[in-house]
Formats: sequence, C-alpha cells, structure tokens
Amino acid sequence: MTPPDKISVLLVEDNEDDAELTLRVFRQYHFANHIHVVRDGAEALDCLFSKGVYAQRNVCEQTKLILLDLKLPKVDGLEVLRRCKSDERTKSIPVVMLTSSREEQDVIESYKLGVNSYIVKPVDFHQFVEAVKQLNVYWLILNQGPE
Amino acid sequence: MTPPDKISVLLVEDNEDDAELTLRVFRQYHFANHIHVVRDGAEALDCLFSKGVYAQRNVCEQTKLILLDLKLPKVDGLEVLRRCKSDERTKSIPVVMLTSSREEQDVIESYKLGVNSYIVKPVDFHQFVEAVKQLNVYWLILNQGPE
Repeated sequence: MTPPDKISVLLVEDNEDDAELTLRVFRQYHFANHIHVVRDGAEALDCLFSKGVYAQRNVCEQTKLILLDLKLPKVDGLEVLRRCKSDERTKSIPVVMLTSSREEQDVIESYKLGVNSYIVKPVDFHQFVEAVKQLNVYWLILNQGPE
Repeated sequence: MTPPDKISVLLVEDNEDDAELTLRVFRQYHFANHIHVVRDGAEALDCLFSKGVYAQRNVCEQTKLILLDLKLPKVDGLEVLRRCKSDERTKSIPVVMLTSSREEQDVIESYKLGVNSYIVKPVDFHQFVEAVKQLNVYWLILNQGPE
C-alpha cells in the first residue's frame, strides 16, 4: 500500500485480519485516507523517523496517534514504544497498545515506558469493532493532541 | 466529603459545578462510591502520596485514573502531573487532563510531562456530560491499567 502524503494514524499491525478490520472501522469515520499500516516494528520506526524507504518523505511528521501491536516482527512493540517515548520528536504522540496480550508484565512495562493507553483486543468480532470505534472517537475526536 | 476506603478515580477539580456534574455521570455508571474529589493540587499530592490528612490511610493506593484540572489552587495541575509522573509509585496511573484551557502551551507541556490524555472541557452542558461519559467508558472499561 502506498502511504498517503500526510497521515494522522500509524497502525503497526502484522495480523492481516486485525489490520483490515481496524481499517474498515476507520473508513466509517472517513479517516481511511489518513491511516497508514506497517507490518513490523522496523518499518514503524523508519516511518516515524523518516529513514529507509521513508527518508526525505516525512510521512509521519503529522501523526496524531500510533496504534501499536506488541508482538511484531523485526522490532517488537515495546522497543518501538521505548524509542518513540525517549525521542523529543515523537514523545508527545499518543501511543495506544492494541494487543491480544493480557500479560501483566506487558501491561506494566508498557506503562513504565510511557504508553498512553493499553487496550486488550477483544476476541469477539463485534466487541473488537466496538473497541476500535471507541478508541477512534476517543483519540481522534475527544482527545486534544499537541499540534 | 469523607473519602471512601479505597478509590478508583481521583478527581482534582476546584470548580464545584464541574465536579458535581462529573460525579453525576459517574453515579450513572455506579462508580460514585469509588471516586474521591479533592479541590486543590496540594491535597491531590497528599492523597496520592499518603501525606497530611491522608497519612497512614493509603486511600489512593488503588487509584486507576486521575482526572486533573490544570488551574488549581495551591499547587497547579502541571506540577501535580510532573510529580506524579516522576515517581515510581504513581507514574503508571493514567492521568487525564480535564481542563478548560485550549492553550497550545498547556497541551504541549502536559504531553511533555507524560500526560496520558488531554481533554478540553466542552462549554455546552450536554457535550460536557457526553465527554465525561466517553472518558469514563474509555478509561474504566476499555483501557487496561496496571494492577
């Protein structure tokens, strides 16, 4: 998928079904043109820091929300979170973990690293759609991010 | 108001009307017994760190959410946030700024200090109630906090 010029939401998700379902909800809210999906942690970092195939494109410079899976190929979600929250350029972007892990260790580590919110993906299809809707409304409409 | 033994939500709000309206929404969700309202930043810190009148009561040790106004008597919201996010005992508790300030400087500073979310209080009564409902559902039902 070719990334749009400027995105609002970076979705880091290696599970195709979950990514497609999330995109479908975003389409309902007309945010689909401003969401970019990457499949692993290395590409997420490249996008956020304009490296690799993202060099000189600044695709992610207006990112308003990062939806981050935990278990990811190449670089895992906690490492993406750590780098994101320890860099002045990206630390203010809200990061929501969207993961199937309920492991208390993952939850605690995410909060220690500065995650803004941690959502356990509901297994049930309808509950998953409802959760994505709620986080969409919360973070893109109700929450005030830094400009 | 006598604080309950253990609370889930600490509401730091000096405006009586806003505090009452927020409590009313929480009652609808049956969370009213687990919310504690303090009127200034100094009492918020006392509650969070079991000092002053809160010494030896550990009222806030199970706090799952802090709703924090920005302009507060004694110690302002940004200072409460700073102390909260720089202390291992409290840094993992989600903090939501709930404020009438739209000042970009306040928004940026809050995110730099590690706020989890920043909500501008809607001026309209119904929109205010709706916003409190949404943040209630988001943080107390959808979000997974650390135990």
